[in-house]
Amino acid sequence: MSYSYEYPRAALTVDCVVFGLDEEDLKILLIQRDLAPFEGQWALPGGFVQLEETLEEAARRELQEETGIEKVYLEQLYTIGDLDRDPRERVVTVAYYALVKLTDHKVQAATDARNVAWFGIDDLPSLAFDHETILDMAYERLRGKVRYQPIGFELLPTKFTLRQIQHLYEVVLDRSLDKRNFRKKILSMDILIELDEVETDVAHRAARLYKFDRRKYQRLTKQGFNFEI
Amino acid sequence: MSYSYEYPRAALTVDCVVFGLDEEDLKILLIQRDLAPFEGQWALPGGFVQLEETLEEAARRELQEETGIEKVYLEQLYTIGDLDRDPRERVVTVAYYALVKLTDHKVQAATDARNVAWFGIDDLPSLAFDHETILDMAYERLRGKVRYQPIGFELLPTKFTLRQIQHLYEVVLDRSLDKRNFRKKILSMDILIELDEVETDVAHRAARLYKFDRRKYQRLTKQGFNFEI
Repeated sequence: MSYSYEYPRAALTVDCVVFGLDEEDLKILLIQRDLAPFEGQWALPGGFVQLEETLEEAARRELQEETGIEKVYLEQLYTIGDLDRDPRERVVTVAYYALVKLTDHKVQAATDARNVAWFGIDDLPSLAFDHETILDMAYERLRGKVRYQPIGFELLPTKFTLRQIQHLYEVVLDRSLDKRNFRKKILSMDILIELDEVETDVAHRAARLYKFDRRKYQRLTKQGFNFEI
Repeated sequence: MSYSYEYPRAALTVDCVVFGLDEEDLKILLIQRDLAPFEGQWALPGGFVQLEETLEEAARRELQEETGIEKVYLEQLYTIGDLDRDPRERVVTVAYYALVKLTDHKVQAATDARNVAWFGIDDLPSLAFDHETILDMAYERLRGKVRYQPIGFELLPTKFTLRQIQHLYEVVLDRSLDKRNFRKKILSMDILIELDEVETDVAHRAARLYKFDRRKYQRLTKQGFNFEI
């Protein structure tokens, strides 16, 4: 069966930039393409939007099909419609980005390691299409967000140390931060709840654990603020 | 001639929310549709994306064709792909928003007043499609922006009074602001240049004119800040 239109139409796709955090680095989830064009090259997970699904549903479906990842926090990033971004034909793509806890999703990526893998943001392969540009946009959006919204809820484990949240800000901002200053600032945001627990299974001295105060975190996300670091 | 595809494709449109400021109000540019669906109803300017133009080019072309407005500051807002937003078929729309000086564009809208008009944001007609939702998103984005970026460059005349810029913030935020506090804050941003000129042709006492320091304005736009008012 074929579908016929009076005017030519662009194809519509979604692409997903998935950020994950581990002990060392901010990571990006990539898939290895097994079809032309760019066969064998790494690319952002994504694909064609079907008529009976919304854009976000398409992004979730593609993520699930290609990487096994489900139930992530997705935000629409930007829609890119440059004329020659796909060698086949005119393709307009709606880009999304997602933040996930690597601890939740590491295993699933590993089960299909030939086709899906996490890459450190400073150690990326060359990407298919204009996916490097899309990834740069998403990274810039994430860095921008840090300045006026709290981040971490989707990237850190439920209970975390101040060292871990500082590490998150350091990898997102790509520079090291003064420990004393950072702690003062993050605590003054009043979004952390100090727990009566410490880390376990660590070689160094076990540090105090914290969790986010979900209500205050969400209020601050809505209000915005200025986190100068 | 008709174009045939193996899979059905959504149609792709652009829609533009154009904000303009005058002495009383924040205004929105609307067009009156002369074709079904929603014939005779007011709607955002916009239309179908052609294969040989980028999304932003399509937005500019539609704005120009439908409203005569050219050379505006356009920013991509969001892409909406809800399944039933157009009664004809699946249509995905990329929404843009623009800020313009009403003084530059008032006349052109007036020349075709049956089809194009500025509406006060508190005095809008009911709109075709999901255009009210798109307009709400754009208004929310504009209000959000005020908190971490300077605004006004595209909305105010080149030379303006402190009363005018306060008025801008008041209509965007939809509440009145304390004059003394506002002036202190806006001047502390260090983006205004005090001119050696005053208003002309005003009934009240002529006030001092200011203009934006373009370089500082752009730097602050990039850096972000927190304007708590």
